[in-house]
This record gives sequence, structure tokens and C-alpha cells, in this order.
Amino acid sequence: MNAEIICVGTELLLGSILNTNARFLSEKLAENGIDVYFQTTVGDNPGRLKEALDLASRRSDIVITSGGLGPTEDDITVRSIADFVGRPLYLHRPTFDYIRRILRQRAVPMTRLVSRQCQVPRGAIVIKNEKGTAPALVIEYTFEGRKKWLMALPGPPRELENLFATALGHLLRKARVRRSFFVTRSLKMRGILESQVAQKITPWLKMRPPCTVGIYAKPGEVEVKIMAKDSSRNKAGRLLSHVEKALRKRLAAHIYGTDQDTLSSVTGDLLRQKKETLAVAESCTGGFLSHLVTETPGSSDYFVGSVVSYGNAVKINLLGVAAAVLARQGAVSRSVARAMAVSARERFHSSYAISITGIAGPGGGSINKPVGLVYIGLATPRKTTVKKYLFRGSRTEIKVRAAHEALDLLRRSLLSGL
Amino acid sequence: MNAEIICVGTELLLGSILNTNARFLSEKLAENGIDVYFQTTVGDNPGRLKEALDLASRRSDIVITSGGLGPTEDDITVRSIADFVGRPLYLHRPTFDYIRRILRQRAVPMTRLVSRQCQVPRGAIVIKNEKGTAPALVIEYTFEGRKKWLMALPGPPRELENLFATALGHLLRKARVRRSFFVTRSLKMRGILESQVAQKITPWLKMRPPCTVGIYAKPGEVEVKIMAKDSSRNKAGRLLSHVEKALRKRLAAHIYGTDQDTLSSVTGDLLRQKKETLAVAESCTGGFLSHLVTETPGSSDYFVGSVVSYGNAVKINLLGVAAAVLARQGAVSRSVARAMAVSARERFHSSYAISITGIAGPGGGSINKPVGLVYIGLATPRKTTVKKYLFRGSRTEIKVRAAHEALDLLRRSLLSGL
Repeated sequence: MNAEIICVGTELLLGSILNTNARFLSEKLAENGIDVYFQTTVGDNPGRLKEALDLASRRSDIVITSGGLGPTEDDITVRSIADFVGRPLYLHRPTFDYIRRILRQRAVPMTRLVSRQCQVPRGAIVIKNEKGTAPALVIEYTFEGRKKWLMALPGPPRELENLFATALGHLLRKARVRRSFFVTRSLKMRGILESQVAQKITPWLKMRPPCTVGIYAKPGEVEVKIMAKDSSRNKAGRLLSHVEKALRKRLAAHIYGTDQDTLSSVTGDLLRQKKETLAVAESCTGGFLSHLVTETPGSSDYFVGSVVSYGNAVKINLLGVAAAVLARQGAVSRSVARAMAVSARERFHSSYAISITGIAGPGGGSINKPVGLVYIGLATPRKTTVKKYLFRGSRTEIKVRAAHEALDLLRRSLLSGL
Repeated sequence: MNAEIICVGTELLLGSILNTNARFLSEKLAENGIDVYFQTTVGDNPGRLKEALDLASRRSDIVITSGGLGPTEDDITVRSIADFVGRPLYLHRPTFDYIRRILRQRAVPMTRLVSRQCQVPRGAIVIKNEKGTAPALVIEYTFEGRKKWLMALPGPPRELENLFATALGHLLRKARVRRSFFVTRSLKMRGILESQVAQKITPWLKMRPPCTVGIYAKPGEVEVKIMAKDSSRNKAGRLLSHVEKALRKRLAAHIYGTDQDTLSSVTGDLLRQKKETLAVAESCTGGFLSHLVTETPGSSDYFVGSVVSYGNAVKINLLGVAAAVLARQGAVSRSVARAMAVSARERFHSSYAISITGIAGPGGGSINKPVGLVYIGLATPRKTTVKKYLFRGSRTEIKVRAAHEALDLLRRSLLSGL
């Protein structure tokens, strides 16, 4: 089975917003073993939407639209779909009552416009939108003598993401599709280039369905994604495990986690397991490392706190870095990174501490200390080490790269016990 | 003139990466007064790419492709385009020399695969890729008796963004298009809902080209975008100013900035102008507020530093919050927010200080103190105030919302002098 995605919204064609829905839908469809060959974006224009619906119905079994279900005159999706499949609209009473209740809670009057959201094409399955007002719709229709299925989802990502699984369930039941099971595993790596990974696993990259392997490079990271499909969930799982094992053999040294793991969650788990605690003293990253650490729920179990020592006075007063060292070596130096890490560990009474000092740019660089120069210190119960880096990129990229590198240093230290 | 965007890449159809190129290209084309009615995404499949090129040539004057210019077998764009426009490929010597030089610098051998990137269709304008290897191409061709223009850009966003303006210049010169000038102004607002903005400026939202007004809601923000087009740059500018003035009259109280402004940059400018300094004591936002502040280049002029006081011991030891207050009121309380702000201002010797304490979730909430409860304190040279909030959303959303709200409180305080 294959599907086609149509995103509706003039704001997408103007580049005012990023199309996260196309990505979400594509990813979920792939996970459900449904192929996507085309994504199309059209504006709030009935003629062009109809053209897209026509083309998609010609090419695909399933057509999924996102957006254009709202209450304003610009929201043309439901009307266009009703026209396209040749069904009249009617007022869906449960939706009307639900929206009226929500509006009452918010003390907003029920207007003629709002009630537009309660109009649905006859024969559609209507799925209540718990995170908003406009419901999702699933419709079976006939196009050039063949059965097709249409799913219309609201545009706001939270609403769309919340409704998709239910809508897909209805659609697959309607279509009587024997669901094939699709399992995936992402191996997440640092400290290796995409081309190096490709060289190590060349034969696997040429695999064809039901099991395929792909490489994706992200800033500072490489991800290898294994996908396996079968009508039996167990079989798909076994296929995947088999390939995962082979790939791990070749890539083990670089893998820091899988699937939903982040450097922050993996490092957090290690700290928790080993009953260690962490403090941070960061300068050029300006709080971003602390933010990363605290993105993981439950990080208060091991994260004590941090000092963002942007000014030199803070390095002296709050961290006790010697003024003489600052004057002699400068704030961006090996000695200051060391002093910051040691002091953070002492003042926060943590077992581990990370320090970062550097030049994020765009200003502040010199020939001896260029933009991107960063020292990262790591104080452990056993020793303190400092590493020097030269990161490339924008101010934000340098902050992000330095913070991730710092977390990775900590992770390796926790793993090795050094 | 209108254009159509075709993004090429199976990883987009699998949902493995976000399509930022479609957004960038759409935004830039709009700014150049070129309408985009369709964006299409296809995989690394010559047949389907050709189908997309055919359809786009039928509907549009300009066709822009992104992706598929790389050296691997999967990179099929150049070959497909050459086939489509009926031109043979030849080895473009300057590109070959350029790529060989780059590879030599990186000590990578020149392989047969790499040399694929030097093949271009006869008659194409070839634009050197300073940020990568594969060049951009601009081609004039005839489709069903009409002149059309094609632009092929590499997929990596840095490369594409760097090449676009040059390629568009070549294309418009080839097409002998009298360029129309397109000017835009975004009015950025906080503290007002999208629907409230819509009500205040209803007549303007109905304007038609050459000047249009749109509303875009983002988390915690509303943006009103004015766009004006004319063959004279001055006229376009006057048209825009006229509408901007009228809208500002209705929305002034809520506007914090325009265009590239961020809450961080606007607040930073105010601090710098008034020669004030800022310190931060943050708990549940975990460093994110400090990160926001330091996203603005030159923030070291006014940002002194911060304490991320995740553990209670840090609140006591580094910020001097009274243990008794913590015990009696709990860490998430008005009194603790006040003590944190006052203490941060003292210990960092800053003129202003912000504090944030709350529950970011998903755990840690209770009936009296639910997830999303946040206190924000603001200590100024004149007084200290604390405000209570209940933010909704995920852990990250609560962190982001609280940090932005804190910056906005500071901004309003700096503006009012209270």
C-alpha cells in the first residue's frame, strides 16, 4: 500500500513556517509499512487543492491531508474534499456539542464561523480532536473505479500528532488491510564521520526490503537506521536484531545510544546508575549545557546546578578562579577551564563537574584565540582533565557543539571509570 | 512569474529529516515577488522525479530542485534533468579542478564517484559551491513551445542557502525578468491572542496584492507580516510604511520588535542603552533563560552570569536562600522566587536580576503545585516583584515559555522604568 501527503496552507508556500507535519506523517507511515512516494504542499486555494487530490488519488491508495480544517474562510479543505468525493456536508452534532462545550469553558461565543468546523461529508468517520476543535476525518471513496481512502487531519502539529494513530487505525480497518509490522532501530554515534560509517558497513547499505539500512548525518552525530518489515511482528523483530548485531560489531566503539536516547538521557542514566552527581561551570555556552542536561526528566536526581560565569568577576567571586590566572592566561585558557571544573565540583559538592570556556563569536576572536576555540574541563573523583577544541560554525552552532562534546566526554569518563 | 519547488530525497519521504529547504526557498521567492503554488517532494527515483519535473514545467515558469547533486549512485537529479531537457552531460573542467583541489586539502582521493559531480548538462550556467563540492545549475529550456527556467541546488541547507541568491540572479537575467521589488515587515507581538489580533485588523487582512497582511501564531507569540511589491523599490517601501503605520496604531501595546528582532536581542539592546546589567537565578528552566540571553552576540556587555540552582542545597549555599523559607514554603513559591532574585542581584553585583522557580514536569507535580506552576521574580534597582504563572505543555515547552515570559517581564520593566 502506498500513501501520498498533501499539506494545505499558504503560510507553507510563503515559507513562514516549517513543515513538520510532512515529516511526522512520513515517518509514521514508514513505521507502518506504508510507502510514501510524493509529498505535495498547496495553498488555501480550492482549485489547486482539487488538482492535488486528483493527482494523488491517481497515484496512491491513501491520501492524507493536513491543515485547512479551521473555522475561517481560508480553511477550504473539508469543502474541497466533499466536492472531490461528491458527498454533501452535514452538521455533525457530537462535534457541535463538543466545540460548544469547549468555547463555553473559555467564555468565547459560538459564531457561525466556528460552526463551520462541525460540517463533515456524509459517510466520513469523524474523530474527536482532544487537543483542539476541528475533528479528523476518514473517508472511503471510489476513484476511477478503484477504492481509495482519505484522511484529513488538522494542521496544528500537536493536534495532528495526537489524532494520527487513531485515524490510521480506522483507515486500515476500513481498507481491510492486513497490517504489516514495521520495526526500526536507530544506532546513534559520535566521533565518526558519515563516510567512515559508510565504509565500515557498505554491504548492509545495499540491502533491499524487507530489511534496509540507511545513514543520516546530523550536526556532530551520525545515525544508522535499520528498518525491517514482515506480516509477523516476531519475524520482523528477528530480522532487525540479526542486522543490528552485525552492525554493532563494526560500529560499537562509536555508538552512544539507540532510538529515543539523547546524549543527555544516556549520560543521565549513567550518573543515576553509578549514584554520581554533576555540577557545571559554563562560560561561552551561556547555560546551554545546563539546559541540555535538564532536558531529561528526572535530571534533578543527579544534576545539582551550575554557574554561568559570563563575566570574569563571576569566575573570581562565585567560582574562586584566581584573578592572577585570569590576567595571565586569559579567560579562555586551559588553566581557567581547570580551575572552573575543580571549583564547581567543590562548591556544588558534586562528584563530577564539567567546565566550558571559549569564544562563541562572532566577535571576540583574535589570531591566537580565534572564534570557536573552546576548552572543556572535566573533574572526576579521580582526576581533572582539560581538552582543547576548535569548533566551526555560527555562534549557536559553537554553543551546541561544545555542550554536546562536553556531555560526551562525561559519558566516556563514566563508562571507562577513568 | 511563478515557481515550483521540487525537493529530492528519499530521507524526506521517510521522515528522517525536516525539509528546511522548502521553507527557505519559499520565503526567498516570496521576498523576490515570485509566487509559489506548489512544493513537491520525491525520492531518489528517476521516473518519479521526471514526472515531477514534467508537471512543474506544465504549471510554472521556474522549476527549482534541491538535493540529489551528490556523488553517490542515489544522486540522480543532474542526470534526470539532463534527460528531461534533452541535453548531453559533459565534464565541467573548472568544477573538476575545484573539487580535486578541495579533496587534496582533505587528503581524500579523487574517485570515479566524485567526478560524477563534475558532469553538467550542455548549456547550463554552472555556479561554484563555496561551501561544498556539487555546483548549482541554471538552465533555460523549452517546454511545449514555451521558455522555462530550471535551477538545481545541492541539498545540504548551508550550501543551498549560500548559492540561492547568485543562482536566482543568473536565472532572472536569463529570463530577462524586470525584477519587482518585494519588501516585508514583521511586527512581533506577545501578550495577545491570534484571534484578538485578527479582530483588531480585520480590514487589512482582506487586502490584495500589491500589499497584503497575514497573521502567524507561534508558541507564545503572534506575528503580523506585511508584504508589498512594486517595480520601484521606493514605491514598495512607501506602500509598506503606510500600512505599517496603520497597524502599529492598533497593535502598539503588544509589539516588542520587528523582523529579525528576538526578545533576547530587544531586551539586550535596552539593557545596553540604559547601561544596566543582568544576572539570572533559574531553577526549573535549567539554564535555558541564560542560553536565550546569550544567544544575542555581544551579550557579555550586559549579562553578568547566572546560577542554575537545581538542588535546594544550591539555593541555600550559592544564593543564600533561607533554609527555613525553603522548608516552610517549598522551593516553588513566591518567597523563594523573591529571595533568588534579590540574592542574584546582590551576589552578581548586577542592576537587574531575574529568578525562575517552578515545576517543568512531567513528574514532581501535586494538587497544590501542579506541573507548569512557575514563579518569576524580577529585582530592579527600585523594587522586587514576583508573578505566578501556570504554563501548559511538555517539559521543554514549559521551560521555553517560562524563559520567554521572564525576558518579556524584564523588557517591560526596562521600558516603563518601573
